[in-house]
Amino acid sequence: MEVKGFLAGAVKAGIKYENRLDLAMIFAQSPAVIAGVFTKNEIKAAPVIMGMKRLAFGRPVARALVVNSGNANACTGTQGLKDVVQTMQLAADALKIDSREVFVCSTGVIGAPMPMERIERAMPELVNSLRPDGFDAFSQAILTTDSHAKVSERMVQLTEKTGKILGIAKGAGMIGPVLGPPHATMLVFLLTDLALEPDFAQKALNQAADASFNRILVDGDTSTNDTVYLLASGALENTPISETLAEAAAFQEALSQVCEELALMIVKDGEGAGMAVTIQVEGCRTQEEAQIISRTIAQSPLVKTAFFGRDPNWGRVLAAAGRAGVALNPDTIQLFIDDIQIVKDGCGVGSEAELQAKGRMRLSEWTLRLNLGLGEAAHSVITCDLSVDYVKINADYRT
Amino acid sequence: MEVKGFLAGAVKAGIKYENRLDLAMIFAQSPAVIAGVFTKNEIKAAPVIMGMKRLAFGRPVARALVVNSGNANACTGTQGLKDVVQTMQLAADALKIDSREVFVCSTGVIGAPMPMERIERAMPELVNSLRPDGFDAFSQAILTTDSHAKVSERMVQLTEKTGKILGIAKGAGMIGPVLGPPHATMLVFLLTDLALEPDFAQKALNQAADASFNRILVDGDTSTNDTVYLLASGALENTPISETLAEAAAFQEALSQVCEELALMIVKDGEGAGMAVTIQVEGCRTQEEAQIISRTIAQSPLVKTAFFGRDPNWGRVLAAAGRAGVALNPDTIQLFIDDIQIVKDGCGVGSEAELQAKGRMRLSEWTLRLNLGLGEAAHSVITCDLSVDYVKINADYRT
Repeated sequence: MEVKGFLAGAVKAGIKYENRLDLAMIFAQSPAVIAGVFTKNEIKAAPVIMGMKRLAFGRPVARALVVNSGNANACTGTQGLKDVVQTMQLAADALKIDSREVFVCSTGVIGAPMPMERIERAMPELVNSLRPDGFDAFSQAILTTDSHAKVSERMVQLTEKTGKILGIAKGAGMIGPVLGPPHATMLVFLLTDLALEPDFAQKALNQAADASFNRILVDGDTSTNDTVYLLASGALENTPISETLAEAAAFQEALSQVCEELALMIVKDGEGAGMAVTIQVEGCRTQEEAQIISRTIAQSPLVKTAFFGRDPNWGRVLAAAGRAGVALNPDTIQLFIDDIQIVKDGCGVGSEAELQAKGRMRLSEWTLRLNLGLGEAAHSVITCDLSVDYVKINADYRT
Repeated sequence: MEVKGFLAGAVKAGIKYENRLDLAMIFAQSPAVIAGVFTKNEIKAAPVIMGMKRLAFGRPVARALVVNSGNANACTGTQGLKDVVQTMQLAADALKIDSREVFVCSTGVIGAPMPMERIERAMPELVNSLRPDGFDAFSQAILTTDSHAKVSERMVQLTEKTGKILGIAKGAGMIGPVLGPPHATMLVFLLTDLALEPDFAQKALNQAADASFNRILVDGDTSTNDTVYLLASGALENTPISETLAEAAAFQEALSQVCEELALMIVKDGEGAGMAVTIQVEGCRTQEEAQIISRTIAQSPLVKTAFFGRDPNWGRVLAAAGRAGVALNPDTIQLFIDDIQIVKDGCGVGSEAELQAKGRMRLSEWTLRLNLGLGEAAHSVITCDLSVDYVKINADYRT
């Protein structure tokens, strides 16, 4: 797991727990193009505020990303912002670079002050840990309630060269990303050895994130910290890819695939999740209506507990659709679990179909398809069940 | 527990389970004025469709209410509507009244056909069970996952006479009423021995329901069956109360109190609920913004699991407020648990305050007060925690 032009590393800084990797770094050996999308939550963590500000002005380059788990640095006021600036400076000093080339991400508990002395103390060792194959340690260090690291790789075939995209993500809870364009505390880092034009990098990221991270929902609780960064080292020395190049499509496709794969991994490893369910809502008048209905179903506690019970309780699905604020005609509603129809024209098909559907619900991935029979528009989101473990994890989180 | 002019009763009809009261009736000894509010869910149960249609035309009178638990008669198509008509006719025949004077309510599983032969078989015994003190049996028969019956009574002092309002409710799950005006499968029956003008009855009910049932949220899953009926027998032979009479205010106040008391009971007995939390959002620009934010907080799985863990995890509250789609200023946010301030100007007050707050969260009723510092508008809703038991109850519901 390497990407030309980048080094990575991680250390145990003791930010929240002893003896686990919790401070990580990615280092670009020469200035990398950076693009980003961030949470749309009105309450934004300090590193998100800083990152957005940096990307809003000019075309920044990045030399380093510093990421910590255990503390979100959210709702920490001006001190939180100062702590981000100090982290940037600490990293810049240790790496002998400009602090404006450092980007910071945090995930963990909201409202606790950043233990800056621990970050300061750990910085030399962190820089020392950087190596081409340091991404394993990096992907471990950024986790919180995740049960495992999430990594996806794709090759991008150009005319003469083969580029690579490496994606590393963390997810688990507070997942209902609405990034700007997309969203989760989802942190995602996308690295490529290809050279990209900055504008193209941002557009490609917007498009990939919108079709992936913006379509997953664990609990619908959009995080204060959701961030996706794309860094392009250009180590492959290709002509920087812009929208007008034929290679743009190949890059976009590979980037979208990496994002979709990571998004699915995040749902499957959602807090307490036992399955990933695609909620496909079709036959709507507009795409917006399809989106509202699919998100309402994906957030319904009654629907999600029925998933947990492997109960094809379609009445709850119809009731959730019915409260989404969209005018419906009950008589034209069809509902399927994978290819098994369980509702026909608004009424249940019967217990035999439901028994078959129950079998599908025991799989780790399946699709709930709702056709409203009102038009041609469609939208889908991926969600998980609401389990006893989700409640236990989140009742105990800070204790 | 009696109200002049009304009889009540209940029987074991075996609609879903053997050997429990599940079919109930209220009988008005002479025609009663009726008013109603119904779920705003687009997917409405057959008895709701019928009830709305009846109240939309003219000023109906009611002689009988038939209520069953165990089957919601929702998503049952034209057969469901036929079954309501048949139930009306069965009751009318047994009571020797006009079937247009019979109203029907159902609660229970969605999508199962009504076992009409059982209702037909039980009808003579149901009519036979009617008596002035039959409201105990009635209040038991309408329950589903409720742990106990919910009853509230108030006296209404008129110049010369003292009237009475008796309220009987069921709640538990699928509670996020949005009735028209208000909403839950919440069923509420309000009976008074006073005479009311029909228009006043409907307006008084709208107002009382809006300030009570429309402000509670167990899971936010607005039911297909939520119904509140107000019946006035007029047995007290007072001049029918209209808006212009001085007595209107006294009646409105008593009715509102009954509704508020029942609404609180519904939350406290919500599926798996261990507490009732008032989410008071103030300092907003508009009442609509206060409403959106209070409902978003009340539906946040992360906030509600923190309640369950008695964890004053205020970061989750701020994050939920921040994703409500309303522009916020983090620096002017104050948060209190009862009178204990835990967030000042967007930052945590500290662990001592949180420890105190934790103590309050162990009570069965407490208030979360969020002041956004943006204006003067406010709104409150009452919700409960999201517990392990909620998940267990709803994962197993149909099995």
